[in-house]
This record gives sequence, structure tokens and C-alpha cells, in this order.
Amino acid sequence: MYYCLASCAFPSSHTTLHLRNKLSPFLFRRNRSHQTLQLCRRNFQIRAMRAVIQRVSSSSVTVDGRVVSEIGPGLLVLIGIHESDTDADADYICRKVLNMRLFTNESTGRGWDQNVMQRGYGVLLVSQFTLYGFMKGNKPDFHVAMPPEKAKPFYASLVERFQKAYNKPDAVKDGVFGAMMKVNLVNDGPVTMQLESPQSSKNETKASTES
Amino acid sequence: MYYCLASCAFPSSHTTLHLRNKLSPFLFRRNRSHQTLQLCRRNFQIRAMRAVIQRVSSSSVTVDGRVVSEIGPGLLVLIGIHESDTDADADYICRKVLNMRLFTNESTGRGWDQNVMQRGYGVLLVSQFTLYGFMKGNKPDFHVAMPPEKAKPFYASLVERFQKAYNKPDAVKDGVFGAMMKVNLVNDGPVTMQLESPQSSKNETKASTES
Repeated sequence: MYYCLASCAFPSSHTTLHLRNKLSPFLFRRNRSHQTLQLCRRNFQIRAMRAVIQRVSSSSVTVDGRVVSEIGPGLLVLIGIHESDTDADADYICRKVLNMRLFTNESTGRGWDQNVMQRGYGVLLVSQFTLYGFMKGNKPDFHVAMPPEKAKPFYASLVERFQKAYNKPDAVKDGVFGAMMKVNLVNDGPVTMQLESPQSSKNETKASTES
Repeated sequence: MYYCLASCAFPSSHTTLHLRNKLSPFLFRRNRSHQTLQLCRRNFQIRAMRAVIQRVSSSSVTVDGRVVSEIGPGLLVLIGIHESDTDADADYICRKVLNMRLFTNESTGRGWDQNVMQRGYGVLLVSQFTLYGFMKGNKPDFHVAMPPEKAKPFYASLVERFQKAYNKPDAVKDGVFGAMMKVNLVNDGPVTMQLESPQSSKNETKASTES
């Protein structure tokens, strides 16, 4: 038995009703196969920017055997960009990552107390389109990730956004977009967080297009 | 403007209707704050086992400066256990991780073609309760992760399950549950996947309790 009620956000009651009609077979029928659930999830998935954040003692990126970027203690942030992502998603991810309290306050001993900027630690951003992988059986499918020609400048603007928002811009480092990289890290704890942007911007855009 | 239609699974139309009543203010009203959206997401979240899978050239776990576990090429799998997880979730995650086609077939050059077992590569499992962290503002809250006293034996049985399912049990390694660890890895690509178990088992259990 599988049930599905998709987590999404919609611009108008018209669209909401339309989607509820489309979803209703999944909402109210039992004994659906897992294939159906996956199809439903794929079609009505959350559309958002994704990040996987690892608290690290150190991290570096190597391309063709050469270290192109490195940080000491801080955060390694893998970024997955959805084809529908906008500046608002980038804003949210940037703000949340920089302000997440993932570090112990060493003067008080209190855990989950300080963010990466309060510690003056590094942030290493690495583009990771596989975060938008959906499993078709056992094979990953990446068709909802933003295509590389659009994702490259968008990702570059995200890196700039982090550098502007951090009061110590040099602390924000970057991999090489689209390159085959070896990403070295020492996950400290380990501490790994998953983050998704909310979807307001897309709804507003879609609403203004539709209305 | 925020809208919310939560992705969940329910045992009966009674429960579904009850939830739709609870959700209706979020579904059909506009101009809700982000706080409300987050509350909605937190209360009606997906209940599943989570995994973050990284394809690695090598990985190891160090506790108190001593390497306790290591693999060469393969998968580092961070596991987040929800308080409601059952053997069915463990079965799903084990099967999917071992069968995901994340490796290139070197004889044909075809990408995303072979799974970790076909390559005879290692699997390093590390328990990671922070995957069930929800942000309360900027502070993570982990109250829906399975409590340690219950999670420890459950996680141990998950490791055994992987060892039994892999045709080369020695290839499956483990960290130290609950210890402060340094998890070293070289993410190769990088390739990072997020996985969640489906929710059938929980629905069946809940349905039989309620009926």
C-alpha cells in the first residue's frame, strides 16, 4: 500500500484544484505499486535549490591531480540547482548556510551555537548536479537539474552572493564548474545537513505569468 | 505568498480527510509567512529512513586519532534513522544503495552502468542523526531522529543486512555508533545522491493499529 500527497506550492486556487484532480487517484486509492509512487513523486516533486552541507576539519578540490581550492575548518557545501531555480532560491540557500549554527561555542562549551561566519571559518562551494538525481529503477536520471549552459552563470552568481554576504569574502572558495573533481574532506562529527529552498519565488513568477 | 500541500502517506481515508482539514488553511490561503510554511513542513514531514551516498575513491573513519575503518573505491553512506523506521525501511535502503548504478562500466565506457557489487567495491556505513535535523530559525533540531538507545541496535542490524546482501560481506564496513568521528573521504566526481525509503511499512502498521 502506497499513498502520495505531494509537497508543492501553487500560484492560484485554479492551479491547486487542477493539481488536486491530477493527484486524487494517488491520494485516495490503495494498493498502488511503488512504480506509481515514484512516478507521482517525480512529477509533483519539490522544485527547489538543494544543498548538502558537511561540517569539515578541512576540505579541498583537486582537478587533474592539481589542488584548485582548499579550506581549513568550515563547511563543504554541495549545491544542486533545479531547472526552475531563481535568485530567490540562491538568496535563501546563501542566508541559511551562512547562518546555520553548526559549531560549538568554544568559550561557553555550548553546542550548535555558532555559525561559520562567527568562527571565521571557510566555505567551499561545489556544484553537484547529481543532487537532482531520481532513480529510474536502479539508474539515476538527472533531467530536472538545470542544464549546464544555464547553470554555469547561475552557479557563478551564487558563489559571488556568498562572497558578498560573508564579511570575509576570501573565506568563500569554489570548485571548477563541470570539471571532474576529487573533493577531499574530513567530515567532523560527522555533521551533515540537507537543505532545500522554499518555493515562493517560483509561485510568484508563475502567478504573474498566468494572471 | 506561500502554499503548502504536504507529501505524506496515510493509512485510511479517515486519516487523509482529517489531515486535509488540518492542512486546508495552508492549502487555500495566501500571504502566509515562511514560519507557517516551515511549521507545516515540520508537522507533516516525510517519515522515512534517509541516506546520503557519496561515490568515493577512498574513505575512512578515525576515532580519537585512530583509524577504525576504511575502504578503497566505493560508497560512503551516511544513514539518518527516523524514530518511526522499521525493518522495511532498512530493507529498501540496503537494496537501493547496493544496486544503484553509480559507476562507469570500464569495459564499455558506459557511465551510470554498474553498481558497487558489480565492481566489488567497498561500502562504508556511518550513522548520521543530523540528517533528521530541521532548522528552527538557524538552530538545528533533531527531535524526530530515532533516540540513540533504540537507534544503536537498529543501526547494527542495518549493517548486518548490508553484509548479508552483499556477495562479499567483508566489503561492508562501519563507523562507531555514537562516537565523535572524523570521516575522511575523497568524493569522486563528485557524485552525491540523496535517498529516502518509501513509507508503506509504516502505513500498514499504523492502519492495523487504528483498524
